[in-house]
Order: sequence, then C-alpha cells, then structure tokens
Amino acid sequence: MDEFELIKKYFNWEQKDLLNPFDDCAVVNFSSDKHLVTSIDTIVQGIHFFSNTSPNDIAYKALAVNLSDLAAMGAKPKYFTLALTLPSLDKKWLSKFSYSLKNLANKHNINLIGGDTTKGFLTISISVIGEVEKNKALLRSTAQVGDLIFVSNTIGDAAYALKQIKNGNPLSQRYLKKLNRPEPQLVLGKNLIGIANSCIDISDGLEQDLMHILKKSKVGASICLKNIPLSKDLSDYINKTNDWCLPLAGGDDYELCFTAPKKYANIIKSLSAKIKVKLTQIGVVNDSMELTRVGNFNKECNSYKHF
Amino acid sequence: MDEFELIKKYFNWEQKDLLNPFDDCAVVNFSSDKHLVTSIDTIVQGIHFFSNTSPNDIAYKALAVNLSDLAAMGAKPKYFTLALTLPSLDKKWLSKFSYSLKNLANKHNINLIGGDTTKGFLTISISVIGEVEKNKALLRSTAQVGDLIFVSNTIGDAAYALKQIKNGNPLSQRYLKKLNRPEPQLVLGKNLIGIANSCIDISDGLEQDLMHILKKSKVGASICLKNIPLSKDLSDYINKTNDWCLPLAGGDDYELCFTAPKKYANIIKSLSAKIKVKLTQIGVVNDSMELTRVGNFNKECNSYKHF
Repeated sequence: MDEFELIKKYFNWEQKDLLNPFDDCAVVNFSSDKHLVTSIDTIVQGIHFFSNTSPNDIAYKALAVNLSDLAAMGAKPKYFTLALTLPSLDKKWLSKFSYSLKNLANKHNINLIGGDTTKGFLTISISVIGEVEKNKALLRSTAQVGDLIFVSNTIGDAAYALKQIKNGNPLSQRYLKKLNRPEPQLVLGKNLIGIANSCIDISDGLEQDLMHILKKSKVGASICLKNIPLSKDLSDYINKTNDWCLPLAGGDDYELCFTAPKKYANIIKSLSAKIKVKLTQIGVVNDSMELTRVGNFNKECNSYKHF
Repeated sequence: MDEFELIKKYFNWEQKDLLNPFDDCAVVNFSSDKHLVTSIDTIVQGIHFFSNTSPNDIAYKALAVNLSDLAAMGAKPKYFTLALTLPSLDKKWLSKFSYSLKNLANKHNINLIGGDTTKGFLTISISVIGEVEKNKALLRSTAQVGDLIFVSNTIGDAAYALKQIKNGNPLSQRYLKKLNRPEPQLVLGKNLIGIANSCIDISDGLEQDLMHILKKSKVGASICLKNIPLSKDLSDYINKTNDWCLPLAGGDDYELCFTAPKKYANIIKSLSAKIKVKLTQIGVVNDSMELTRVGNFNKECNSYKHF
C-alpha cells in the first residue's frame, strides 16, 4: 500500500465543505466576518504517550489537545490537517486510529481537509483552523486587576494518573480517561465570550499557565490552595502528603483557567449550571506582578520541561 | 531554556497581522472574497534529509515544500505554523535553522504565526495557509482532453543529485541547490490562473504526479521522452545509460506540471519570457485513461514509497 492508498483507505471520510479532496492543498470557504484562529500541536511516542498507549487514545489526544487550544480562545472548530509519521504500516493500528479520530472530529464538527504521511518515529502533528467573531477571541493578555480567577472541573487528575501508572499502581477508568481522553472545553470557551477577560487551557500546569496570563496582562494574582477543585483520590493523596505539585504543576489537564470581572460571578454560576461544567473560583487578579499562594505549601514545583 | 524561552529567542520575529503573539492559538484576519488554501507537510531526518544536512537547508526545505503546494494551487502565501521536534536544544543549530526559515519566509511574504516545540527524533511539520480568488484555484481534477502538458525548468535534477551523493561522487553547487534549495514556483502558479486547466507540483516524480492529474480528471495522456527538459549532466547520464527513471520517477523536483488549452500556447511562451521560468511542452492530454510514453524506454520505474 502506498501513501495515497493509505490516505484513501483510512482517511477518506465524507469531507464537508472541501472543494477538492486529495489535491496539493485543501481549498475551503472562510467566513468574511470572522477572525481565523489557528494552532499546531505535536504528540510524540515516549513523550506524550506510552509505547503501549492504544491508537484510539493516541488519535483522541492528538486532536483533543488542539481542540483545547481553540476552546481557550472561545473559537469554533472548522478544519484540521493531519501529519502522521509512522514507523510501519500497521493496518489494525491505522483502523483504530482513524476510527477514533473520526469520532472525535464528528463530535465537535471539525473536518479533516488534508494531511501528509511519512515513515519515521511515531509522531502526530495536527493543525486546526477555527473561527471566532472579530475582536471577540479570548486572549491571555487582557486580564484586569480585580478579576476573579476560575478553573473548570478538577485540576491535577492527569498528573495523578501518570504518577500512579509510573508507580505501577492500579487506576480507575475515571483517571485513565482524564489522562488519555481529556475533554476539550469548547462549549465553555464559546460561552465565556463577553464574560471572561482572559483565558488559557491548562496544558503545562495551573501555575505556569496562569503565569502566562499574568505576564502577558502585566498583572499579578493570588490563588487559594484550599479552593482548587480536586478529585477525591487526589484530595486524599494531598491530605496524606501535602504534595500540591500535582495540581499546581502537573499539567495535561486541558481544563480552562479564566479571569472575569467580579460583577459576572452570578452569571458564571448560572453558566456552570446551564452547561453542566463545574466552575470554581480559585483566586483574584491583583497588581503585584507576582503569583502568590494562600495556604500551607511553599515548595517550588518543577514543571515539565522538554529540554 | 524552556520551550517558551526557545520560541521567544529563535522565533520571535516581527509578526505582521498577528493580533495576539504567543497565545493558545494565533488570531488573524482573512479576506472575505478569497478561498482559504491550506496544506501540511512533514520532513524527517533520514527520510527527507541526511543526518549531516545543514540546519539552513533543513529549514529551507521544510518551508519550501509547503510553499510549493501553494504554488501548485496558484495561491498566495499568507501564514504558517511550525511544529519542531528536536532531539536536544542545540543553540547553534537553532540559530541557523531560524535564520534560514526567516529568510525564505520574508522572501515569499509569509508570516510565522504559531508553533509547538517537542523533544524527540528530528521532525519538522509546517502547516501553511494561503489565499486564492474564489473558484480560481488550480486543481488536479480539471484537465481537459486536448490540453497541452507543460513542466517548468528541468526535471530529475534532485534525484540525480541524490544518486551522485549516494554513490560518493562529487557534485556541483547547481545540483546541491536543486536538491536542498528547491525554488517554490509561486510566481508561475499565480500567473497560471486563467491559463492552466490543471496543475500539480512534482514532488513524487513526474509520472506519478501527472497520473494524479489524469486520474482525478478522468483522462489520459502521452508524453514524449525527448521533450522532457533535462540539465546537461542528467542528459549526458541518460545518453550513456538510457535510464529515464530519474526524470520520470525521481521526484523532489518541486517544479510545476500543468495542462492548458492549445490556444494558450503563445501566451505561455510569453509568460515564460516575462517571468524568466523555462516552460516546456512534454505531452498532450487524451481520452485514453492511460499515461503512455513516446520514446525508447519501456521499463516501469519504482517511485519512492514510504511503506
């Protein structure tokens, strides 16, 4: 099977809006009154997933981390392209990968419009294109002093799951799902337009990602450790160890962290109920230019560094 | 140095049109009256370049092969994103890579608007976004019976260069340039709008790429071997060996192959003189549904297959 047969067999989905399938480039329409929002993310075997991670989970995560970037801008997913570097042509692997990718793409109404396959060490790059009303995108640079800081759902579960796996401990489906199948918060992101002053997705760790907002917005913040929403197991672990580094620096959560004016507190409460996404206030933006913790934990946590 | 410092140090160029540098996604304007044209291409060490290929040449080729895809659509480059997977943080390597990438990007007025860096086996994915007047993109699917078939410049030089390198033979700068620094034919592509009925870039080999046009357009063609434009050294090599596989199946040329109505033959001649790109007629589109060669060479050539 050559590259073209591979693409036709595994990635020849119904391609809505695409004017010319399998050409040099994809040609698509783009709305005139929208801003174009784009991102690229790569996941590599041994870095972002284990060598025994299922192709279903790999495909899911490769697309989900990109959708999460769109969610953090309040953008609507439109199109994606896939660059797939494979060590060999494993038909079973490709069937599962393709099936899972298609499922997630359909769920969020994003269309695969192009790609490239190459032989090499297992590496998946996905590039997404989304749209957002002009000048409405949620940015990192526009947090305001006095804003309340919120996060979605619970924080630190992916890092807790990874730690348990590395220690050879058994793990419930709930935690495996948080690690391998993070839910991109697209509905939340879209609903935060007009409410949040700034937003980011928590991929590198809560403190590091919040620091991106603070630096770009030239503000500071304090966060209250006891307010950080934790799952039961992680909460038990922290009660035993006082090791707050998992939620503070673990990363890979793909929850949203956003800041919003105090006057919107009730609107955010209603939104949480309406879209059934837990939203918890964990701190306040101030003019200190620093990020400080309130609570009994002063250790500096090591965030993941590639190099 | 962490990922963010790396990006700021090596890829913090003046980012025209970008509304929010270093955010989750890039946010940019897109013209209302244009079609969006996008592509992604990956190059991997050991497959697309040697382990001793210079970072300057790697960066050049990673972007050039994507620009070539835009050229084949007649599209104008607008934006690109870069996913860089690196085995280690080598500052010298990154400086050269960044410098060369920026040079080529500036030359073709395409703006780096986002990216991702990861640790792993040296792999570079670039995603490009371009624009073309609505319904004017050059496609593979619209060749017409009776069209003349043209190629730009000379064909087979990259494959000839690769063969000489693999055989340990000395090679002139001209051939090294054809292999490592292919010129994306953007000016030609743009000028073919309204003239060519179909177009493709020759990345996989002349016959294989022309077959893509024929299959998508549901037509056939005959090409005349003696009309294929060859460089002096490759012509000498073929005179000695009668091995036509280098120009027919070598690939990696990134010249354009296009078809156009006979009535435009003189316009194409003038265009060639005006934009100083050699354009040669090598065959004719017919209704045979097959690709036939005219000339003394019947061997089937092996095209490069990843798997």
